[in-house]
Amino acid sequence: MPGPPEGQEQKPLTPEEREAKKAAKKAEKERKKAEKAAKKAARQKEIAAQQEADRLAREGPDFAKDRYGQKERIQSQSREGRKFTRIEDLSVDDATSRVLVRGRVHTVRVTGKQAFLRIRQRTHSLQAIFAVNDVVSKAMVRFIGKLNPESIIDVEGILNKAPSPVESCSMKDLELAGDKLFVVCEALPRLPLQIEDATRAEDDTQYPNQDTRLDNRVLDLRAEPNQAIFKMQSGVCRLFRDFLLKEGFTEIHSPKIIGTASESGSSVFKLQYFKTQAFLAQSPQLYKQMCIAADMGKVFEIGPVFRAEDSNTHRHLTEFTGLDMEMAFNEHYHEVLEVLDRLFISIFRGLSEQFAEEVEMVNKQFPREKFTWLEPTLRIEWPEAISMLREAGEEIGDFDDISTPQEKLLGRLVKAKYGTDFYILDKFPLCIRPFYTMPDPANPAYSNSYDIMMRGEEIMSGAQRVHDPKLLEERALAHGLSLEEIGPYVDAFRYGCSPHGGGGVGLERVVMLFLGLPNIRKTSLFPRDPKRFSP
Amino acid sequence: MPGPPEGQEQKPLTPEEREAKKAAKKAEKERKKAEKAAKKAARQKEIAAQQEADRLAREGPDFAKDRYGQKERIQSQSREGRKFTRIEDLSVDDATSRVLVRGRVHTVRVTGKQAFLRIRQRTHSLQAIFAVNDVVSKAMVRFIGKLNPESIIDVEGILNKAPSPVESCSMKDLELAGDKLFVVCEALPRLPLQIEDATRAEDDTQYPNQDTRLDNRVLDLRAEPNQAIFKMQSGVCRLFRDFLLKEGFTEIHSPKIIGTASESGSSVFKLQYFKTQAFLAQSPQLYKQMCIAADMGKVFEIGPVFRAEDSNTHRHLTEFTGLDMEMAFNEHYHEVLEVLDRLFISIFRGLSEQFAEEVEMVNKQFPREKFTWLEPTLRIEWPEAISMLREAGEEIGDFDDISTPQEKLLGRLVKAKYGTDFYILDKFPLCIRPFYTMPDPANPAYSNSYDIMMRGEEIMSGAQRVHDPKLLEERALAHGLSLEEIGPYVDAFRYGCSPHGGGGVGLERVVMLFLGLPNIRKTSLFPRDPKRFSP
Repeated sequence: MPGPPEGQEQKPLTPEEREAKKAAKKAEKERKKAEKAAKKAARQKEIAAQQEADRLAREGPDFAKDRYGQKERIQSQSREGRKFTRIEDLSVDDATSRVLVRGRVHTVRVTGKQAFLRIRQRTHSLQAIFAVNDVVSKAMVRFIGKLNPESIIDVEGILNKAPSPVESCSMKDLELAGDKLFVVCEALPRLPLQIEDATRAEDDTQYPNQDTRLDNRVLDLRAEPNQAIFKMQSGVCRLFRDFLLKEGFTEIHSPKIIGTASESGSSVFKLQYFKTQAFLAQSPQLYKQMCIAADMGKVFEIGPVFRAEDSNTHRHLTEFTGLDMEMAFNEHYHEVLEVLDRLFISIFRGLSEQFAEEVEMVNKQFPREKFTWLEPTLRIEWPEAISMLREAGEEIGDFDDISTPQEKLLGRLVKAKYGTDFYILDKFPLCIRPFYTMPDPANPAYSNSYDIMMRGEEIMSGAQRVHDPKLLEERALAHGLSLEEIGPYVDAFRYGCSPHGGGGVGLERVVMLFLGLPNIRKTSLFPRDPKRFSP
Repeated sequence: MPGPPEGQEQKPLTPEEREAKKAAKKAEKERKKAEKAAKKAARQKEIAAQQEADRLAREGPDFAKDRYGQKERIQSQSREGRKFTRIEDLSVDDATSRVLVRGRVHTVRVTGKQAFLRIRQRTHSLQAIFAVNDVVSKAMVRFIGKLNPESIIDVEGILNKAPSPVESCSMKDLELAGDKLFVVCEALPRLPLQIEDATRAEDDTQYPNQDTRLDNRVLDLRAEPNQAIFKMQSGVCRLFRDFLLKEGFTEIHSPKIIGTASESGSSVFKLQYFKTQAFLAQSPQLYKQMCIAADMGKVFEIGPVFRAEDSNTHRHLTEFTGLDMEMAFNEHYHEVLEVLDRLFISIFRGLSEQFAEEVEMVNKQFPREKFTWLEPTLRIEWPEAISMLREAGEEIGDFDDISTPQEKLLGRLVKAKYGTDFYILDKFPLCIRPFYTMPDPANPAYSNSYDIMMRGEEIMSGAQRVHDPKLLEERALAHGLSLEEIGPYVDAFRYGCSPHGGGGVGLERVVMLFLGLPNIRKTSLFPRDPKRFSP
């Protein structure tokens, strides 16, 4: 488009020029407004400083000045061996003791001559009151009133029986009459996420959105339900291992960098490995099996599992923690299934017995029905599942895979019929399982494989594996794989291998479904999905 | 070059043509030789078949034919609940019992009318003798004599007291008078690596080379010393966790896929992450620290650590298993160091007490002096280490880093002077530590950081970390880092963080150095180095 002709002297403004002029005017107005506001603020600051100076002059020298303030940065200058009290260890019997408590400023509020401080240690809290008296000065109370929430402080004082229960704190029977307070590490005055908001019930209007939480995960994790979730996550790992170690399993650590894409090429992350290319392991499958072929008998692994699936759902992550096991058996893969069955029961019992308080904390945010299971565990074979679905009106072929909605429906049907959130679905059709799954000898349309379900969602897939190299090659060809592709896999079984089976479960899913949480990002410390890989 | 002129009739052969003619002659000779050999072999096979047929005719129908052979492939056809005996559970009191044993053909040898079979279960073995009698036929003994080593077999028979100790087996007091044998899973007749060779002492001429071992890791791992090593590796993880869980630590799982290269850009693996680029975590450093900032108090992680260093040494891997811990402390980083100190002592005691047999098994292959430590642990500060090195003739500045040979020399000097293979080197110069290391408040040329050493090699680096965002920025600038680069790292500490410290250790190094092994590839299940990422 040619420009305007030269020499033209007067011309009506174009719409763009009018816009620009208007914007410039507005900007000038804003500038003036800001200038005025700045001047006013400066004047107010001056007045406040003068008032403060007057007040200090009136009050005289601060007799409490050594009792509060910023503590020197802790750089291991000295070691006095002072005893720091944990709020969770306190009981009403500790009344009248003098204690030193390090914790966070959860909230602070000044009324008249008193500062009320809620000190937080993880999921525990204690009220401290600083009242102006012969050791606590007015200036000290003012200082406390201005503490930034989330700052870490050292508080000293005497524990007193609370005149009435302190409902806002976990320690209801005691309050601390504080007389010393030092800031160990100050938080910025403005928090991008309030801990109180991060603790609200899911249906509260101020419940923060997921990205705000995850962008500020360090703050988010401080919220009580999150502290509880990750204590439970640690607990699941411990319960998983303790059970398997007692059963004679050996813990292994298989490589995550692998030379060939393991199960399916499409969902594998590619890696630059010096001058060549490598992949991230999608499961420890082959390595677990190699350990069986190497006579390790029974093995388990807890480690990261990587899936390059572009799935943005409530239950998919691109990196999660796999709890994997594999074992040789003597006669029948149900020997493996029984170990898995007892393993899960042991985890559920452990969670219920050892983490009742944590379940309670999470339930305040996400009220859910308690997770239920039967002992012995309910086992259903594939044809029964298909019948139940058909009776409920679903159209599904004998050997069709169950869709995610059908899986959930089946969970509800099972719950209604048998009253359990936990069951094993055995004998999957062979055609919907990986090539290394052992066919059912009685009916080769089915297989010796199973899924384990919690609240209607699959948490573990497992099977008897084909340990015979000839059958393995046959099965691979039937799946359209070439023998070159699976060569290194088959080679592992050429020098004799015991019949074996196993399974893998996602740690995050177990915790999510035990608690009935709505999203797997709740149970991953720093979740990874196609759109998020930080912090 | 133009071709030879046309019509030329006779010409002396060129050197190439002479070569080709010679080669053709030779090939023809070889072909004839091969043909002759094949004919001979066929003749011999015919004769053998005839002899076999004659023999069978002479022997009459095989009365033992249901007592041996190939077992149907175990596909979970049935579950009889038969009891399989573990060799390790046997004692001389079991003499006269009838047992069923599943194991590998370790060796087999036929002398006259007897087959001698060593059955192996991991590191345990039992001799079985099949002698021709009224249930064991000659054909059965011949069948057993031809078993491929490493095949998995089911053997039945009566346990007898051994007339003299069976020196070649772990069970010396009993031998099995076998009367049934079925092959569960056959090994290929030729093994690329003999288990016996993989078990030889390091100075044996038939000790296999490293690549042969690692290329055939499934076979290699069956060797007794390797079975022992990986039982111990599992043990170290258990001891590490049991100690820390008892101390109130929480287990975490931090992401391995990260958005920004953590410590140093040069040694990080790059990853294609959907449409962008990501990296593999070189350590869980930042995430452990974020957990401290998130009030988790004390955390540990066992997980893979990735280093894209092109180092082909006896002690570097591109992927290893990190045992990491981090904790808040109250006054002094020695609170952390003391936990680490007690942690290692607990691991060493556990290994010595619970794995004496395994240490013995490894020692047969790699005879080494027993690993020694002092209680309380020896701690040396940096200046003393420098003095010791100087006294030994090394030229080294006060703040120079110690080279690998100097580190080893220091280990020998410490061992000579104090009699320990384990010590802590405290107070490293600030300039040779990462930017997030807390400076020593008394002398800022040093830092609140330490290495932990086994047999003169560093196994753990740790420190008090800078928890103050201002100081962290100062230190980053002093290290020539830009504030943009470290922004996300510093942000984790802006909302108040307890003083804290920790450290990380490589699982493979701990096991290697406890046992005094010459190469870290011995203690990695499937080692990864710049040249190897399979199997």
